Amino acid sequence: MFINGFFDYNQVSYGEKYRGYPDNDQVINRLFDPRYIRIKVEDEDSAVDHFQVVNVDKNLDMQTGLVHELFSITTPENRNFNLVVESFASLSKQNVYGVKYAIIPTNFEGDIELIKLHDYVNQSTHQQSEDVRVNQDVGQMQLDFIPDNGQPSYLVTTFRSQQGIILTYQADQATDSNPEIDYFEDDNHHYGYHSKYHAKPGSQKEFEFLFSIGDIHPLVNARMYADQYLASLDNYIRNTSFNSELMASAQVWQTFWLHSDVKIDGDPVIQSCIRFNLFELNQSAGRDEFTSIPAKGLTGNGYGGQFFWDTEIFMLPFFVYTEPTIAKKLLMYRYHTLQMAKEQASDFGLEKGAMYAWRTINGYEASAYWLAGMAQFHINADIAFAVEQYYTITNDEDFLKKDGFEIILETARFWMQYGNFAQVNGKRHFVINRVTGPDEYSALVDNNYYTNVMAQFNLRLAAKYAEKFGDTDIPVQLNVTGEEIAEMKEAADLMYLPYDQEKNVKLQFQNFEQLPKMSISSIDQSRFPLLLHYHPLMLYRAQVNKQADTIMVDYMFPQGNTQDQLKADYDFYEPITTHDSSLSKAIYAIVAARIDRDQQAYDFFSQAVKTDLIDLHHNTKNGIHAGSLGAAWSGIVYGFAGIVNNADHFSLEPHLPDAWNCVKFRLQLHHCELLFTIYQDQVEVELMSGKGMALSVYNKKIKVTPEDPKQICQY
Amino acid sequence: MFINGFFDYNQVSYGEKYRGYPDNDQVINRLFDPRYIRIKVEDEDSAVDHFQVVNVDKNLDMQTGLVHELFSITTPENRNFNLVVESFASLSKQNVYGVKYAIIPTNFEGDIELIKLHDYVNQSTHQQSEDVRVNQDVGQMQLDFIPDNGQPSYLVTTFRSQQGIILTYQADQATDSNPEIDYFEDDNHHYGYHSKYHAKPGSQKEFEFLFSIGDIHPLVNARMYADQYLASLDNYIRNTSFNSELMASAQVWQTFWLHSDVKIDGDPVIQSCIRFNLFELNQSAGRDEFTSIPAKGLTGNGYGGQFFWDTEIFMLPFFVYTEPTIAKKLLMYRYHTLQMAKEQASDFGLEKGAMYAWRTINGYEASAYWLAGMAQFHINADIAFAVEQYYTITNDEDFLKKDGFEIILETARFWMQYGNFAQVNGKRHFVINRVTGPDEYSALVDNNYYTNVMAQFNLRLAAKYAEKFGDTDIPVQLNVTGEEIAEMKEAADLMYLPYDQEKNVKLQFQNFEQLPKMSISSIDQSRFPLLLHYHPLMLYRAQVNKQADTIMVDYMFPQGNTQDQLKADYDFYEPITTHDSSLSKAIYAIVAARIDRDQQAYDFFSQAVKTDLIDLHHNTKNGIHAGSLGAAWSGIVYGFAGIVNNADHFSLEPHLPDAWNCVKFRLQLHHCELLFTIYQDQVEVELMSGKGMALSVYNKKIKVTPEDPKQICQY
Repeated sequence: MFINGFFDYNQVSYGEKYRGYPDNDQVINRLFDPRYIRIKVEDEDSAVDHFQVVNVDKNLDMQTGLVHELFSITTPENRNFNLVVESFASLSKQNVYGVKYAIIPTNFEGDIELIKLHDYVNQSTHQQSEDVRVNQDVGQMQLDFIPDNGQPSYLVTTFRSQQGIILTYQADQATDSNPEIDYFEDDNHHYGYHSKYHAKPGSQKEFEFLFSIGDIHPLVNARMYADQYLASLDNYIRNTSFNSELMASAQVWQTFWLHSDVKIDGDPVIQSCIRFNLFELNQSAGRDEFTSIPAKGLTGNGYGGQFFWDTEIFMLPFFVYTEPTIAKKLLMYRYHTLQMAKEQASDFGLEKGAMYAWRTINGYEASAYWLAGMAQFHINADIAFAVEQYYTITNDEDFLKKDGFEIILETARFWMQYGNFAQVNGKRHFVINRVTGPDEYSALVDNNYYTNVMAQFNLRLAAKYAEKFGDTDIPVQLNVTGEEIAEMKEAADLMYLPYDQEKNVKLQFQNFEQLPKMSISSIDQSRFPLLLHYHPLMLYRAQVNKQADTIMVDYMFPQGNTQDQLKADYDFYEPITTHDSSLSKAIYAIVAARIDRDQQAYDFFSQAVKTDLIDLHHNTKNGIHAGSLGAAWSGIVYGFAGIVNNADHFSLEPHLPDAWNCVKFRLQLHHCELLFTIYQDQVEVELMSGKGMALSVYNKKIKVTPEDPKQICQY
Repeated sequence: MFINGFFDYNQVSYGEKYRGYPDNDQVINRLFDPRYIRIKVEDEDSAVDHFQVVNVDKNLDMQTGLVHELFSITTPENRNFNLVVESFASLSKQNVYGVKYAIIPTNFEGDIELIKLHDYVNQSTHQQSEDVRVNQDVGQMQLDFIPDNGQPSYLVTTFRSQQGIILTYQADQATDSNPEIDYFEDDNHHYGYHSKYHAKPGSQKEFEFLFSIGDIHPLVNARMYADQYLASLDNYIRNTSFNSELMASAQVWQTFWLHSDVKIDGDPVIQSCIRFNLFELNQSAGRDEFTSIPAKGLTGNGYGGQFFWDTEIFMLPFFVYTEPTIAKKLLMYRYHTLQMAKEQASDFGLEKGAMYAWRTINGYEASAYWLAGMAQFHINADIAFAVEQYYTITNDEDFLKKDGFEIILETARFWMQYGNFAQVNGKRHFVINRVTGPDEYSALVDNNYYTNVMAQFNLRLAAKYAEKFGDTDIPVQLNVTGEEIAEMKEAADLMYLPYDQEKNVKLQFQNFEQLPKMSISSIDQSRFPLLLHYHPLMLYRAQVNKQADTIMVDYMFPQGNTQDQLKADYDFYEPITTHDSSLSKAIYAIVAARIDRDQQAYDFFSQAVKTDLIDLHHNTKNGIHAGSLGAAWSGIVYGFAGIVNNADHFSLEPHLPDAWNCVKFRLQLHHCELLFTIYQDQVEVELMSGKGMALSVYNKKIKVTPEDPKQICQY
């Protein structure tokens, strides 16, 4: 069980440690599994004797969020019974988790005792992995029982991050199946629940529990928080039942699917995968403004449960277009950690601006390898880009003025501090040297194309809104001057973007063409992903990409590119890209779709969308690839539906895969909700709510209004 | 006590560990101090009671190598005595160390007992330092007494590096002052020496000991090595005495000073410093072909007691010109570790060639920070350069053919593998991307000027000797082909050397001019050295040099440079150089002397030469700066004497500091020994041995021969 944002520090050792290196990694805590149960059958005890457990069936109902598991269990003395475990994490009350057990003896009659006692913090997985992407469990949590509380209650605390959280559960009082609630205290003063009954073959007895999980709180006054929370349990798990809470949560899921589902006609495997992806995305997203979406969702502690650019660039589009209230909360996480980003810039030695952490939970940098960590400064522009995207689609001017502008301004300031004006090939330019772009098979390069385009965008945003809001709307303490804005505009206009005039190709970075090409096809399959099998420098010295880098630009800024340009870029980078990062294929799929490489687009998309449900990289055990899941949604909407969202106009140029009869999804745009139904040769757009808007399909302008809500557009 | 090459592994932790990162650091072991002594005075015992020790005097006699120390010691009961400790490490028998104690009571009469028992491996310093340049003691040694050996004998072993070494000592039997040799075995079966006598005020009693220290041997069969060694003690410390060994060693020192001394008339402080430097250099140099010169000599475990390019580039010139037999042994260390260098290249993924470790004892890379470690590939060319320098001066063709050529060839092969042909600014060049040059305030740059010039030199050397020796003299197993040599020549000819045509300045690396200049003068003094006070990236992104980098080229390859070129380079780099590395100032001094910046030359030289005797960087406690000591000698010979040593001709262009009346030194050149006496306006060259040779002073050709051994040349 992972709670978003509940983490501990893990001290980092360095062979050589320099100033500004993070002292600590941040790793999400692995809590006990609330599904755990101990069962005694006559004189046999699952805690002592070796019960043989066969998992017969495992099922996630994505419509309700219910996980249904069936186990066939045989004791050493050959007593066999079925155990059904049903569980869900509530979306209606985010603090609630429910689990229900049904026990059905098949070949014996006798006494069965069920004991629910979580007297350990589950650190039992003990993953041993050479894979740098896998985090070890931290194992510094302390679990204390809170006595005299009527029901088993725990305070889980961390020593180093100084966080506490309260967990409590109660047996379901609303049904007949648990006639007597029998909590106990054992010799160690540990509190649990047990129930004993006489069972006959084929009989079924059910036990239902609701867990309530408090908010993360500081360790100071932990008991006060605990008392307050436990006193408020009426709001969570009292006077309700497993089924009531499951229904309430399923209701939220139903609403989610109404607005966010993507229906694909003609491709059932992809249909399942995309729904699984959206389910995981929705379940993982932080909703409290102090958490974002871990790179592995809430399904593993890979990458420490930390937040990366994955959220803003790969996952946020889905939320912005379908759940803008969640999108805003995710952006507010960045606003609340802006102070840390400013501290980091100052500590690094810059006079102003904000330097967001490449990977973090609490806002401070947690990367122990700055070459592929802090040096990926593009995250600053990625966040500014996300603010603009949210604003463009939602028109939430209140957020932009109050919080968003400050993010845009401080990140733009970073670029002015870190970059500089310089002569390049005899011309004055703004350059950004010594950075790492998205592609982690390069590091510490000069003028990474993606970084520079993003910085340019960031600087222009700051200038645009500074001028739009003017002195009256911009807080005095931000100290914005006309001079500063003029310099930002100049820097953006003079931004150096390396380009090969002969090949007509955007260059990943300055000097990129000097590097020898790595022949990917000649490398043995066993040596992928390359980062696990080569010294980083062996990769840095060659033209080889882990993931889309310059192609990210063609994905995010298709405007102003000719088809020839997009094709030239694609043909240059695709052969040198290993897609060792799960963030790559969906992006390649989108650009491939735009240049009519239909089969490649579909192949890349399929692989991206299947990443986790099919476990394509054989590492889903370390957690899902949340960025890839989000990018797969983008693959449909930006790629196959071909949406382009300029600040002033929204358009579609669909390229549906041959196998698909139609794809259907809703988007929320400028306070309207539109339902798109895209066929091979036509698009239906239907206004589901809102005042209506204009858009275009293949340059044909259409308008949906409450009076004339549905338009069909053939092409 | 440090024994060159006696080291242990120290496991390195990394926040993120990638393939090819060294698992272990290598750290020279700190052994017990052989000067340690325990003294009992009546019922007071220095091992138990707090004796107050005042170091009255400490003296190193550089003519004999004898350290003389006088301590005034007062017991808690106010008994005072003087203790004189004299010690030396023998140069005539490298396994021998002598120590002699004299005890003189000043205010009491009574029994004195002297106990010599080393029953610990001295790990007691427990340095705690945030300074990445300081190594912690490893502390994994085990000390075992070897019983029944007649005298105290130890086997010291390391667990991880699996090395063993034998130490034994005996009390001096040759003088009257130790009338009875009394070894003892204590309750712990530890063996020592003690002597008790009745002392009167003013009386003096002496105790003399000779230690014998075996060679480093593998842990397997350690006892066999021990028995063999102990059986051979007649060769070392038996039938001899402290004084005999001191005399024999002093004789070697005398020969050393005869050939290697630098006599400066007019600058007594510099005179002392330079002698101290030469003393330390001579004492630190490995002479067994399996060790080199640790960066801190044998005076501390800073930098782990490891070998760097410091040896080949900063120290070797002194040995080549004055002690060529030692120079050869130092180069043979590189030959014996060539196999490791080839392994490393192969492991890195290169098809052939050798990749020497940036820092190492045993030949394998020990750097835990590859950006300023392995990526400093120039070490490969540095070693090839040193081979050529040794050959050019000694004409030792046997070494060159047998061993030197293989080093030159395999390092040249590395450049062909790591570098590549590419278009730069529309022209075909050979480029070497993604390297770190000598300056560690830059990293992972493209086409570092120094690296490329050195690689060019290395490639040309390989081609030159391949062609000179031809098929008959080159072993078949080296697989040299005409094609390969042709390609090396082409690469050398097309080597890309970044240059600013407008400013006429050699550029430290490609894109260097795009970086903003760091204003060194505006940085607070407390923030130097910058590497301890800034994140590395903050330094990498700016024009700021830790040490001479491009200026190294002007030092090592002055030929073909106009004075204007040298001045332009100097004026460009000097203001952005912090000299945070002790390898910097002596080099700047040499180039300053060549361009008649006499005062700057003298100032930089003075600071370099005073580094350790004056403790200029306040860190001599971590060990001397051996490279700086060597470079200071080069400062005199290359700088003030202005020697230039081409393969075919040797010349001088002296620029003596104003304060100096004259400087006098000997050099060994082409089997001749020449004595140079340089005045402000004339040079005397005298042939001391050999067949004579031609050379030039300020373009004036002179010749010294046995018949006409002395030439005076005015200018």
